[in-house]
Amino acid sequence: MQNRKILLSEKEIPSAWYNILSDLRTPLSPPLHPATHEPIGPEALRPIFPDALIEQEVSTAPTIPIPEEILDIYSLWRPTPLVRAYNLEKKLNTPARIYYKNEGVSPPGSHKPNTAVAQAYYNKEAGVKRIATETGAGQWGSALTFACNLFGLESTVYMVKVSYQQKPYRKSMMQVWGGEVVPSPSTRTKSGRDILARDPDSLGSLGIAISEAIEDAVQHDDTKYALGSVLNHVLLHQTIIGLETREQFKKIGVEPDILIGCCGGGSNFAGLALPYIRDKINGKDLSIIAVEPTACPTLTRGEFRYDFGDTAQLTPLLKMYTLGHDFVPPGIHAGGLRYHGAAPIVSHLLGEGIIEAVGCKQTSVFESAVLFARAEGIVHAPETAHAIQTVIEEAEKCREAGEEKVIVFSLSGHGHFDLASYDSYFASQLQDYAYPGEKILEALSKLPVIEE
Amino acid sequence: MQNRKILLSEKEIPSAWYNILSDLRTPLSPPLHPATHEPIGPEALRPIFPDALIEQEVSTAPTIPIPEEILDIYSLWRPTPLVRAYNLEKKLNTPARIYYKNEGVSPPGSHKPNTAVAQAYYNKEAGVKRIATETGAGQWGSALTFACNLFGLESTVYMVKVSYQQKPYRKSMMQVWGGEVVPSPSTRTKSGRDILARDPDSLGSLGIAISEAIEDAVQHDDTKYALGSVLNHVLLHQTIIGLETREQFKKIGVEPDILIGCCGGGSNFAGLALPYIRDKINGKDLSIIAVEPTACPTLTRGEFRYDFGDTAQLTPLLKMYTLGHDFVPPGIHAGGLRYHGAAPIVSHLLGEGIIEAVGCKQTSVFESAVLFARAEGIVHAPETAHAIQTVIEEAEKCREAGEEKVIVFSLSGHGHFDLASYDSYFASQLQDYAYPGEKILEALSKLPVIEE
Repeated sequence: MQNRKILLSEKEIPSAWYNILSDLRTPLSPPLHPATHEPIGPEALRPIFPDALIEQEVSTAPTIPIPEEILDIYSLWRPTPLVRAYNLEKKLNTPARIYYKNEGVSPPGSHKPNTAVAQAYYNKEAGVKRIATETGAGQWGSALTFACNLFGLESTVYMVKVSYQQKPYRKSMMQVWGGEVVPSPSTRTKSGRDILARDPDSLGSLGIAISEAIEDAVQHDDTKYALGSVLNHVLLHQTIIGLETREQFKKIGVEPDILIGCCGGGSNFAGLALPYIRDKINGKDLSIIAVEPTACPTLTRGEFRYDFGDTAQLTPLLKMYTLGHDFVPPGIHAGGLRYHGAAPIVSHLLGEGIIEAVGCKQTSVFESAVLFARAEGIVHAPETAHAIQTVIEEAEKCREAGEEKVIVFSLSGHGHFDLASYDSYFASQLQDYAYPGEKILEALSKLPVIEE
Repeated sequence: MQNRKILLSEKEIPSAWYNILSDLRTPLSPPLHPATHEPIGPEALRPIFPDALIEQEVSTAPTIPIPEEILDIYSLWRPTPLVRAYNLEKKLNTPARIYYKNEGVSPPGSHKPNTAVAQAYYNKEAGVKRIATETGAGQWGSALTFACNLFGLESTVYMVKVSYQQKPYRKSMMQVWGGEVVPSPSTRTKSGRDILARDPDSLGSLGIAISEAIEDAVQHDDTKYALGSVLNHVLLHQTIIGLETREQFKKIGVEPDILIGCCGGGSNFAGLALPYIRDKINGKDLSIIAVEPTACPTLTRGEFRYDFGDTAQLTPLLKMYTLGHDFVPPGIHAGGLRYHGAAPIVSHLLGEGIIEAVGCKQTSVFESAVLFARAEGIVHAPETAHAIQTVIEEAEKCREAGEEKVIVFSLSGHGHFDLASYDSYFASQLQDYAYPGEKILEALSKLPVIEE
């Protein structure tokens, strides 16, 4: 019998996160004040984040130790298994060896608690009583309520109203963990009330929900805000994925040739990829591929410019690949990949040519999803399926070239709350959206012109 | 940091199932022909089961080797972790040490694939092309389609119509694995058509769905039937749970004092319990507790008599604790525990006083469910919550008595498709059904009188 899973013991959970900022040859461009366009210092973030997280956001230390209390919670589901996808290899008749790092085994069902637990911990340490955040499809909100509950913090999740209505069970899960879930736009905040005054039937958007959560945090002394992707400290916490993966490969004496992850804001992709970047910078022959939907082609068709993180232009300006904060992506099922920007770190690495990016169409993505679910048994999230689509393409190239490459991808989450999207696929109701070029150009035309 | 999870490697998956029939002091009463009431031989089961499974049904060999092909599929998620519930212990302030065996980590989300994979394998070996089965809430149907897909078999699942409508995502999951899901009653079978002729709006029942699946199997040469609980061979396959648990406890030098599992048909409870029965018979001080809903009190209020497995009286008569095949349990959310009978093996052990049984009320069960989910992070199935309710009671007794007992329970499945029931709990809409005594007496009065 072949060994499918490469496991680590709890004692082998890495004791420090890896900080990519220490290894970049050129530093990231600084965040700018949304009005003055001047570089901002850490103090600008104090109203919404605790000091420890602000320090991590700007730290250039090579590693940052993981506190014992966080490791203890991680051990509820970590280390996650690295699994050899024998059945998929067989189905594809490929000489490639395919592995996946399964982050879907966490109680909330994705990689998101890696940072949610860390953020809840540092907020708790800082005396914060409550965390406000936004969620779209619900993965991030689930992870944050899960984490807050374990540290005895309250949580308020502004959930995009259309998701609140369409995905009632994500909301239920958050309530099981004691989270308060508020459909957004709400009457709780001025931002919400303004929207409702203009459009009482508004179904909401991630941009609106972010504005509500930030306003909630700013308005209450005992409350802070938490973000589930994009920022440096979020990607830092996610490096636990790639660090474990390295240890697991070391155990079996294997080194990957191709790393693949789906990319929305970038936290899942970066979690796997960042701990391998130094090897790549030092000349190792390694492909590192971020996969995004062609319907929201941030990395493949966006511009590397300063832009706001939210629609309402309240956040600092970040230098990143962007389609423009005004761009509203088509309603693809991979809600976690519908974001106009990409993390500054991911954007920087793409700009430097250290990583690559590719786009996938929705129908092919679901074809790959079903193929994988039937081969390996796991019903996974539509976001993950983007990575799988690219894995399959790379494995097919290996078959044609007769190359026995080692491919590893991040299985970002299970799909137990995404089955309606599989239904749409089987009913042939999925749309392959045309490349939204004009809309993107229009959104990009609205960006501030910043001289660097 | 404390170690939460006791893990085994894939090589440590037990290589044989344990057969309790070899250790019983008095043999089980034989199954009887539904019409003649005479004991039936294995040949009576040939139209619906392959020979290998019929042999396992009656075997008295102490162990039965697990074929390599089954072990290979098991390794997709097995061995499952045995986890110390430190957070729960702390919340309960108990000196008891609480462990759970997490069967919710399987791709279909429960312990059911332990037997589904075995049954699919032996059917495949026997040249069967398709398996027909029934499902209520969907756990068994999911497991069977998962298993059939991996062995290249077709599957047809007759799903109780009300569940088909209320739990659309269980149906979707089965379709992802290539299963055909038919709302029952259907026009596919005579049984279904008869029901529909009398009541075109029938929402179905497990009894009707069983009849349809058996009829489908009997009518088609290339098709067999599969059952997810009750029968000896099903419980045999589930002993993998308890066998692994024994190995895991051995690794840390701990022995359990109390074993707890929820009990509907009995396959989850038996899976954990059976490998410990010999210790108990040999005098070890061990409590083995089956937990059922008070709304369907098979073990605690039923009679130990011969009864049919289905409402239509098509199955052989089995000697078991029963509430009468005509008894329709109230609509509690733990659908997997709504069965009028209990496995003959479990019934026999209860009759001999080797195991105990207790009943739980729905509201308390959900209180315990939420307490556990908030302590340990896992949102689990309402069935599992019955076990947890009893774990909490036993842990509280330990606190009062100052006893450091070791309690282990089987976490039968996750609750990702059961969140509507948690919603009902939070909305205070759960009913604690009165003990349905009159209905049970009426159902029992219809049982055939068999002289033994």
